[in-house]
Amino acid sequence: MKLLEERIIRDGAFLGKDILKVDSFLNHQIDVSLLEEMGKEWKRLYEGCEITKILTIEASGIGIACMAAREFGVPVVFAKKSKSINVGNDFYSAKAYSFTHQNTNDIIVSKKYLTKGEKIFIIDDFLANGAALAALVDICKEAEAEIVGIGIAIEKWYQGGGDKIRSLGYRIDSLAKIKSMDNDVIEFMD
Amino acid sequence: MKLLEERIIRDGAFLGKDILKVDSFLNHQIDVSLLEEMGKEWKRLYEGCEITKILTIEASGIGIACMAAREFGVPVVFAKKSKSINVGNDFYSAKAYSFTHQNTNDIIVSKKYLTKGEKIFIIDDFLANGAALAALVDICKEAEAEIVGIGIAIEKWYQGGGDKIRSLGYRIDSLAKIKSMDNDVIEFMD
Repeated sequence: MKLLEERIIRDGAFLGKDILKVDSFLNHQIDVSLLEEMGKEWKRLYEGCEITKILTIEASGIGIACMAAREFGVPVVFAKKSKSINVGNDFYSAKAYSFTHQNTNDIIVSKKYLTKGEKIFIIDDFLANGAALAALVDICKEAEAEIVGIGIAIEKWYQGGGDKIRSLGYRIDSLAKIKSMDNDVIEFMD
Repeated sequence: MKLLEERIIRDGAFLGKDILKVDSFLNHQIDVSLLEEMGKEWKRLYEGCEITKILTIEASGIGIACMAAREFGVPVVFAKKSKSINVGNDFYSAKAYSFTHQNTNDIIVSKKYLTKGEKIFIIDDFLANGAALAALVDICKEAEAEIVGIGIAIEKWYQGGGDKIRSLGYRIDSLAKIKSMDNDVIEFMD
């Protein structure tokens, strides 16, 4: 998606080889109009596919998921990274290591909000090594919900997580797919 | 806001005197069309007011803030509860105790995304004792940003946090204001 690639080039910041900061428009400050265009793009890509719910993970996925859900006309469920006293005991859980926070989280989704046969579109802001995404996939499998597709804002393709999950048979649509980020020069996949 | 009050009565669950669960439509599963109506209501209430940015706090505030930001045509900034390796060192911080997670968080906002003279509309899902909101107010004061108003989805008025912050001169518009929740019977303020 040209709009997102151009925005990354214009406003993204590079910290070393592996860290791309997009906190001016995606995951701290949020440009909601950009999110709206991203939602429209996924809607276009999944035209004709039945989707009943969008699944994402707190915190940075939520805004993206909500704006996309508006296009699809479906609810969002976001996986939580810590157990609050409100969540009850009846939930699916999976472990995910966070590179940006450098810790392992149990991510959880209440069984009430992810059920057998639902047609799920998973959304997240980043896909790098794929740990968070693999945890969301595991939770869908546990719930016997069908994953129709996976929408990622920015895939750091060279880290390999995306292709690992594609090789399991899942469809992933990343709106910006980074081939390399060496020497502060970013190159996108065609 | 009748729509939200009716939804709380229909789908909210009560756990004892103090906990209202709205995770089927507001803070785990999210009804995005409800959020859109809430955004339109705040837009109506703040007609004629200059607002340049919406400030919220992860995680449950983000979806509500994004849908409202779409109505206002402004960006969102969400305060983070933990420091990731991406956030840098140049941020405002304040302490907030979370009743639902039973811990104290340092919440932080990068100085780049909250600046002097900005006209801020603060949004959050719940207002009870007011700890999270007071921390957001402190951060705005530190940044010398002007708080135009505060939009809350559900205020548990009987817990007193809202009136404490109103008494400091801030305008708070809660779309559902709960007067009492005794014996599983919920009563809203007029």
